[in-house]
Amino acid sequence: MDLDLVIRNGCVVTASDIWPSSEIGIKDGKIVVVGSNLAVKDGVEEIDAAGAFITPGGIDTHVHLSQIYEASVSNLNKTQLTNGVIPNLENYTGELYETGTRSAIAGGTTTVITFASQMKGDDSLVPVIEQYHMLADGNSYCDYAFHVIVSNPSETVLKHDLQMMVEKYGITSIKIYMTYKALKLRDYEILDVMHTARKLGIVTMVHAENADVIDWMTEHLEQKGMTAPYHHGTSRPPIVEAEATNRAIVLSELMDTPILLVHISGGQATRIIREAQTRLLPVYGETCPQYLFLLADSMKKEGFEGAKAVCSPPLREDKADQDALWTGINNGTFTTLSSDHAPSNYNHPKGKQLGLTHGGGPQGKFKHIPNGVPGVETRVPLLFTGGILSGRISPRKFVEVTSSNPAKLYGLTNKGTIAPGFDADLVIWYPQKDFKPFNLTNEMLNHAIDYTPYEGMEFKNWPRYTIIRGKVCSRDLQNSTSPLKSVTIYGIKSGSD
Amino acid sequence: MDLDLVIRNGCVVTASDIWPSSEIGIKDGKIVVVGSNLAVKDGVEEIDAAGAFITPGGIDTHVHLSQIYEASVSNLNKTQLTNGVIPNLENYTGELYETGTRSAIAGGTTTVITFASQMKGDDSLVPVIEQYHMLADGNSYCDYAFHVIVSNPSETVLKHDLQMMVEKYGITSIKIYMTYKALKLRDYEILDVMHTARKLGIVTMVHAENADVIDWMTEHLEQKGMTAPYHHGTSRPPIVEAEATNRAIVLSELMDTPILLVHISGGQATRIIREAQTRLLPVYGETCPQYLFLLADSMKKEGFEGAKAVCSPPLREDKADQDALWTGINNGTFTTLSSDHAPSNYNHPKGKQLGLTHGGGPQGKFKHIPNGVPGVETRVPLLFTGGILSGRISPRKFVEVTSSNPAKLYGLTNKGTIAPGFDADLVIWYPQKDFKPFNLTNEMLNHAIDYTPYEGMEFKNWPRYTIIRGKVCSRDLQNSTSPLKSVTIYGIKSGSD
Amino acid sequence: MDLDLVIRNGCVVTASDIWPSSEIGIKDGKIVVVGSNLAVKDGVEEIDAAGAFITPGGIDTHVHLSQIYEASVSNLNKTQLTNGVIPNLENYTGELYETGTRSAIAGGTTTVITFASQMKGDDSLVPVIEQYHMLADGNSYCDYAFHVIVSNPSETVLKHDLQMMVEKYGITSIKIYMTYKALKLRDYEILDVMHTARKLGIVTMVHAENADVIDWMTEHLEQKGMTAPYHHGTSRPPIVEAEATNRAIVLSELMDTPILLVHISGGQATRIIREAQTRLLPVYGETCPQYLFLLADSMKKEGFEGAKAVCSPPLREDKADQDALWTGINNGTFTTLSSDHAPSNYNHPKGKQLGLTHGGGPQGKFKHIPNGVPGVETRVPLLFTGGILSGRISPRKFVEVTSSNPAKLYGLTNKGTIAPGFDADLVIWYPQKDFKPFNLTNEMLNHAIDYTPYEGMEFKNWPRYTIIRGKVCSRDLQNSTSPLKSVTIYGIKSGSD
Amino acid sequence: MDLDLVIRNGCVVTASDIWPSSEIGIKDGKIVVVGSNLAVKDGVEEIDAAGAFITPGGIDTHVHLSQIYEASVSNLNKTQLTNGVIPNLENYTGELYETGTRSAIAGGTTTVITFASQMKGDDSLVPVIEQYHMLADGNSYCDYAFHVIVSNPSETVLKHDLQMMVEKYGITSIKIYMTYKALKLRDYEILDVMHTARKLGIVTMVHAENADVIDWMTEHLEQKGMTAPYHHGTSRPPIVEAEATNRAIVLSELMDTPILLVHISGGQATRIIREAQTRLLPVYGETCPQYLFLLADSMKKEGFEGAKAVCSPPLREDKADQDALWTGINNGTFTTLSSDHAPSNYNHPKGKQLGLTHGGGPQGKFKHIPNGVPGVETRVPLLFTGGILSGRISPRKFVEVTSSNPAKLYGLTNKGTIAPGFDADLVIWYPQKDFKPFNLTNEMLNHAIDYTPYEGMEFKNWPRYTIIRGKVCSRDLQNSTSPLKSVTIYGIKSGSD
Ligand SMILES: [Zn+2]
Ligand SMILES: [Zn+2]
Ligand SMILES: [Zn+2]
Ligand SMILES: [Zn+2]
Ligand SMILES: [Zn+2]
Ligand SMILES: [Zn+2]
Ligand SMILES: [Zn+2]
Ligand SMILES: [Zn+2]
Repeated sequence: MDLDLVIRNGCVVTASDIWPSSEIGIKDGKIVVVGSNLAVKDGVEEIDAAGAFITPGGIDTHVHLSQIYEASVSNLNKTQLTNGVIPNLENYTGELYETGTRSAIAGGTTTVITFASQMKGDDSLVPVIEQYHMLADGNSYCDYAFHVIVSNPSETVLKHDLQMMVEKYGITSIKIYMTYKALKLRDYEILDVMHTARKLGIVTMVHAENADVIDWMTEHLEQKGMTAPYHHGTSRPPIVEAEATNRAIVLSELMDTPILLVHISGGQATRIIREAQTRLLPVYGETCPQYLFLLADSMKKEGFEGAKAVCSPPLREDKADQDALWTGINNGTFTTLSSDHAPSNYNHPKGKQLGLTHGGGPQGKFKHIPNGVPGVETRVPLLFTGGILSGRISPRKFVEVTSSNPAKLYGLTNKGTIAPGFDADLVIWYPQKDFKPFNLTNEMLNHAIDYTPYEGMEFKNWPRYTIIRGKVCSRDLQNSTSPLKSVTIYGIKSGSD
Repeated sequence: MDLDLVIRNGCVVTASDIWPSSEIGIKDGKIVVVGSNLAVKDGVEEIDAAGAFITPGGIDTHVHLSQIYEASVSNLNKTQLTNGVIPNLENYTGELYETGTRSAIAGGTTTVITFASQMKGDDSLVPVIEQYHMLADGNSYCDYAFHVIVSNPSETVLKHDLQMMVEKYGITSIKIYMTYKALKLRDYEILDVMHTARKLGIVTMVHAENADVIDWMTEHLEQKGMTAPYHHGTSRPPIVEAEATNRAIVLSELMDTPILLVHISGGQATRIIREAQTRLLPVYGETCPQYLFLLADSMKKEGFEGAKAVCSPPLREDKADQDALWTGINNGTFTTLSSDHAPSNYNHPKGKQLGLTHGGGPQGKFKHIPNGVPGVETRVPLLFTGGILSGRISPRKFVEVTSSNPAKLYGLTNKGTIAPGFDADLVIWYPQKDFKPFNLTNEMLNHAIDYTPYEGMEFKNWPRYTIIRGKVCSRDLQNSTSPLKSVTIYGIKSGSD
Repeated sequence: MDLDLVIRNGCVVTASDIWPSSEIGIKDGKIVVVGSNLAVKDGVEEIDAAGAFITPGGIDTHVHLSQIYEASVSNLNKTQLTNGVIPNLENYTGELYETGTRSAIAGGTTTVITFASQMKGDDSLVPVIEQYHMLADGNSYCDYAFHVIVSNPSETVLKHDLQMMVEKYGITSIKIYMTYKALKLRDYEILDVMHTARKLGIVTMVHAENADVIDWMTEHLEQKGMTAPYHHGTSRPPIVEAEATNRAIVLSELMDTPILLVHISGGQATRIIREAQTRLLPVYGETCPQYLFLLADSMKKEGFEGAKAVCSPPLREDKADQDALWTGINNGTFTTLSSDHAPSNYNHPKGKQLGLTHGGGPQGKFKHIPNGVPGVETRVPLLFTGGILSGRISPRKFVEVTSSNPAKLYGLTNKGTIAPGFDADLVIWYPQKDFKPFNLTNEMLNHAIDYTPYEGMEFKNWPRYTIIRGKVCSRDLQNSTSPLKSVTIYGIKSGSD
Repeated sequence: MDLDLVIRNGCVVTASDIWPSSEIGIKDGKIVVVGSNLAVKDGVEEIDAAGAFITPGGIDTHVHLSQIYEASVSNLNKTQLTNGVIPNLENYTGELYETGTRSAIAGGTTTVITFASQMKGDDSLVPVIEQYHMLADGNSYCDYAFHVIVSNPSETVLKHDLQMMVEKYGITSIKIYMTYKALKLRDYEILDVMHTARKLGIVTMVHAENADVIDWMTEHLEQKGMTAPYHHGTSRPPIVEAEATNRAIVLSELMDTPILLVHISGGQATRIIREAQTRLLPVYGETCPQYLFLLADSMKKEGFEGAKAVCSPPLREDKADQDALWTGINNGTFTTLSSDHAPSNYNHPKGKQLGLTHGGGPQGKFKHIPNGVPGVETRVPLLFTGGILSGRISPRKFVEVTSSNPAKLYGLTNKGTIAPGFDADLVIWYPQKDFKPFNLTNEMLNHAIDYTPYEGMEFKNWPRYTIIRGKVCSRDLQNSTSPLKSVTIYGIKSGSD
């Protein structure tokens, strides 16, 4: 056969099946054949995957790159409007496309869906989408696509732009917020958005937390001097997420349109989602590694260190919440596992330090700390080590939540599985018996962020080869001199999907 | 014994017990003795209650009298501030204290709790309370008390007035709205109110419907020309009540303060309240006769007639909702049965006709129809006929929800039961075997409203004597020439409790 | 007034009301008047209850007296048939009527419902009932009534005896067992019994534990040498009770007849009962002080001491089960609180020692330990101290579960409350401020049993006067030389109700 | 490539993916390659599947073939022991392997799991297994495997035979009954069986209905003369299934071993299973086409015709139960859809007519009617037409419940999906646009039974080719002269898996 690359002897895992010792033949970026004893011409590259799992490339559907966003009032009237000029990238907090997508690849993710974020000051979505294309194009090493964050559902947006978003830009998912002053929509606006979403047949992602409760709690905590990073969690207990989750489901039931509840962190919200799914409402759930592997004590570290673990919803106090999430992954409540990679540097005046500079005292004010943690690179390996190898989930469930379900939910019809005709996006793992466990340090990672919340955690495998559309983009990181670092990029940068 | 009045041979019913053939001795407005063979001096009035039930006087804790309230934007900045001058009573829609309390008595209710309603334009509650005292004082035939509606939780209200309300005016319950533009509070404001309520140890009543959903639905129904009275119900299906009920419970759980969900109309909300009670949250439920005895088809009558049945929450489509309410009464979910007497005349330019004059066409616009139905006089007899006599509830349950629980919930410590030391507020019913069933017409009623939603309904008993603090205020209505009409008032008008 | 006894100044508590400072007038064993300033003739006894609660006399509806019952196979064919001769009382394990009813009175209980227990070898119930009347008549100091235990639902029983039981003997409740070889019925037999119960309008009490699971677990524990008293609990975890509870409810739902689940011990069963009550099935629940105040560690004491705490269902491991029971009392899941006084002496060859003599080693075999703990005397005071005074329940709830609900459920129409016409069965407590807390020792108690599981527990009040049908049967125990001991009996022994 | 058969242009469906226009290469009974543009040698058979779905061959895991089973007492001591001689096949009611497996193939099923059924009189399982092998070997056209029905869990069975069953015969699933006199186990025996199942790591299938309730109801219905076929359903309402389902789950939770609840028919049982799955208990559910497509009115036909629809659990009254099953398929409660092909001829003295001959009158006695309906041939096409084409389920869900989940649950590791290395068991459907809908008549079917409960029902597609291990066993039935009939068998009969 006329192939570009053949992978032999691997154990192929899909969401429903495991094929021991199969071969994959790749041509022009596609999987063209899966079988055994594939005859190839001379000179075709071959990879021997003996003793190792081959999984579909990770699809991370919740990644913030090159994003200006703060929860502060001062941003309320900001706009993306740039007349085609990319703004000074120094003004962007967090991670840009170049570093973010390299980081993704090193961690076994081959496609990221990032956010094109409308500002409250923007009447239209079009310049937003255009600008994010400018930011991503030519700067991305893996495949990427967009969700559009709608923070101002103006008449222009509802009557015109959302349809154009689908038809011209091929974007079929939007995200809305029920909290954050700069982003949140009232229930009325949510209904408007969902109503339009139903007409267009697109998915609405919802960040569900009750904004009023958070504001009230934050102010009363401040009055009592409880402003240390740890109290970020106090200000938004699990019931705050559960209430908003219930409300979002009610609104979507009224509008009869599918929603995904993003980054679910607590058992109560998990049970509410499950109950809706039992009734067959088109309600989907997403959770993230930080909620599966970390607890609120991460925010309790000395001085201001806890700020590194401040994200929303917050890490939870109670191990029972963590257990509920694992249960929810296994019983199908959670459709996807995403990273919510929304990082800010710790030692940067516009990063986590904002909580100190706007605050005061050794522990600052949590309300000024930019929310979010980095995780695009660690998501897939964390679930491999802490999920499959710890016996908490099966390999098929791993593929389902890291790749297949994300592809299905967001319409990436040629991604998310290993089968003829699909994109040759693959991760080949190390043979388990050969892998030398190691403890992660931030230096090993390829993101542009100065810390990882998983510092010191032991990993028992890591993606050996990450292949995107047939190109081996990262290989043998553990055997390189600087472990995990230096993603090798073959060929050109990838495009949007 | 030295008594003013003795009632003999009745079957006394309390919330927990039935005492066959007991005697009640009354002196100075109090029950002073309960027993048998009470010896009395000559000339003491005696009532023979042989073959009849004696129940504690009805306590109706949800009665709107002399109230200016419209859901229209134009009222947003209205104020109660009157500098001690009672405004022109013609400006008040609905029922005044004089007719409302006479109507209550004729229907076996001896105490009403009415609303002193702050307007959004009022910074303070004090003039509101003062004015409602002026409206009620000297104009009420039965005992009355106040809840205060808080529609503007200003700093004055939160820091000062609510405490004064409790300490100076002895009012220990407030009501808040989650819908109606002129009244509704945001979740943040609700937390402020509940936080203060907890500190003061008072009860918060909540009208729970999601305002945004109602507004959205109403506008979209208008766009489709669906504006007839019947579509009032379409605009706020049961899930709208259920969502807000859940949210109110979450907010009260966070603030750890008791709430009463008023006028619950649907099975979903009922189940949510039950679930909270199972966990022992201090969550109470109220339902009303209109939801137990009427369905949405009442809004479907020809022309504009359906407007007579427009109230909020609306009458429900599904008999299953009605059944759920009866179940909820029996399993204890509902603490109280109140009338939500909130009437507007039908043939009055400021009454239900507003829906036609502001609307157009033969069926008008439901959003301009003043919400509410009359019911203070029919509440107790409806539950006697449709509850006890139909076998749906026991006599003890009847007493519990119409009198005892209301007294306990709102701290009327000397009312709500038949026992020594308590106020002699009593209803003596007709001996069942002697009562001639009749079909109700509005002419028989004593309210000032030109219709009753129960027109034509058959009643199989009616309060024969209504006794307030030992005075027989209404007697033998069925045997009077004009059936049920003409409440006989003995002695002076009653005071607030 | 012509009275025999007047009680003044007490705070009367009923299931629904509290009447501060009331007077109770008693004549011929009945309450004839309740009021204030009751004028009486000279020489009438007066009790001053100033500062103290007066509650209806306790009704303990689950008391085993003069009962032969062992869970051993050897009893399978035993019979009660005695041809009118009372068998040698030495053959009865546990407590006889004389001591048991004195003990009840000392603890504020004025009526006990005891069990007339059919043996598998008995075809008929009549000799059973006759014999238990012989055992009780003339030997009881408080009022008593009977439930009949049906362990052989023969055709005689179903077609004839149960009807006779109701019509001739006035017994309106039966008890069945789902476990214990000597007593248990198959589901088929349970349906037969419930079918007859529905026709007769009587209540069926159910001991709900899955017999097969217990047998299986017991045998497998024995194989592993796990036979110490503590493993009695291991052999029947909460799910065993929950399964049988669910099954009993299903059977009663099919037969449409009321059941009471006796001595519920776990949270799972509690939730199942609650769910049935939510649907208005006539399902009632009973719990007992041992499950509210003790945990499984009581079975873990050194040597064989744990045998003292062996009862069925067993004391539970998990404090969460205990909390669920308290919650169930407060939310109404539990209709009654009974003692399940089913005691065996510890140091008696036919008592708890059976577990040692039939067993072997220092810890014996739990399966030979007679099940049950004493508690008829401590039931009411435990709930007063540990319920009311600890703030876990209200005084009204106390009256409801210890007296009013038991009377209503079993048709004791002239008992269970304080009202004119009702039996003068009363408990007058000590004024709280005067009571000197003490630690209980078994010597203080009036039962015939050589231990109490509450040894050493602190009590903060105790019934000062226990009055049965107007007779003061026990008075001022705390001020007697031998604390709590020596019930003073006025007048003759009481009869069955 | 060296292939035996190539299928081109089909739309391959697996449980997780759809691959449009793929090719499948088959060699030596295995799928060896999946891809596009497969080059093959001359003379290799090719099938063009353009425009059609290709699904994995159906796996029907609940099929009764060559089975002696009656629910009558007279069989209680029967035995399978035959000393190696196959008994006279005329004594077997229902279907034999030869016709049953031909029927399966014609309906797109390539593997059946049938029952080797121990009789109460058998101490050992070995002769049972041996005999069923004799019955199946050489008589089966499709692949087959066995579950073993355990009706006498003797010490031999528990200590020896079950282990031998796994190790020597490779059988890894057993079935037990909670009803039917000739088969049912007590809870104690169920625990014994489950305990052994856990040790061996095998799956226990449970027929969950409460035997005692059914017996009781049946007898009482007979007493009232309610013996017509329709009252088969009256005798076992949905709650009877729900109770036993709950009990089976409790027993399996105690033993910590996986169970499959077979042939679930009602919404209550469905919800109980879902709840167990939410908690991640290893509890699986099975439902059958008869419960998805038929209701109790099928038992109401004139004369004795209703007997044709008598199966256990019975067809349900309420469409809500049917809807609950469809919901359960979609939300994942049901792991498998099986036929429970357990047929008896209608016009046969040992078939359904038994209900008449043992009964009397024109409608007989339902308790003598052999339970069960035929369905092995219609199962897959029914779900294709009534599930996929009616829009109730997706093609992937179809594959999941008819093939992939059955293979996974019972360890058929080389079946249940389309992938390299798996058995070439395939169904190729007709291109939807070309298929001429038809109404089914029993004559079209290949089973040996004289009726189908789906007589007259419209089918909109049907398996065009059924391929087993690479052999086309059935082709183009719709274009044959006798529609659907005459399965074409290529090559030898298949073996057990
Ligand atoms: Zn978010
Ligand atoms: Zn995010
Ligand atoms: Zn309201
Ligand atoms: Zn109102
Ligand atoms: Zn018991
Ligand atoms: Zn007992
Ligand atoms: Zn079966
Ligand atoms: Zn079967």
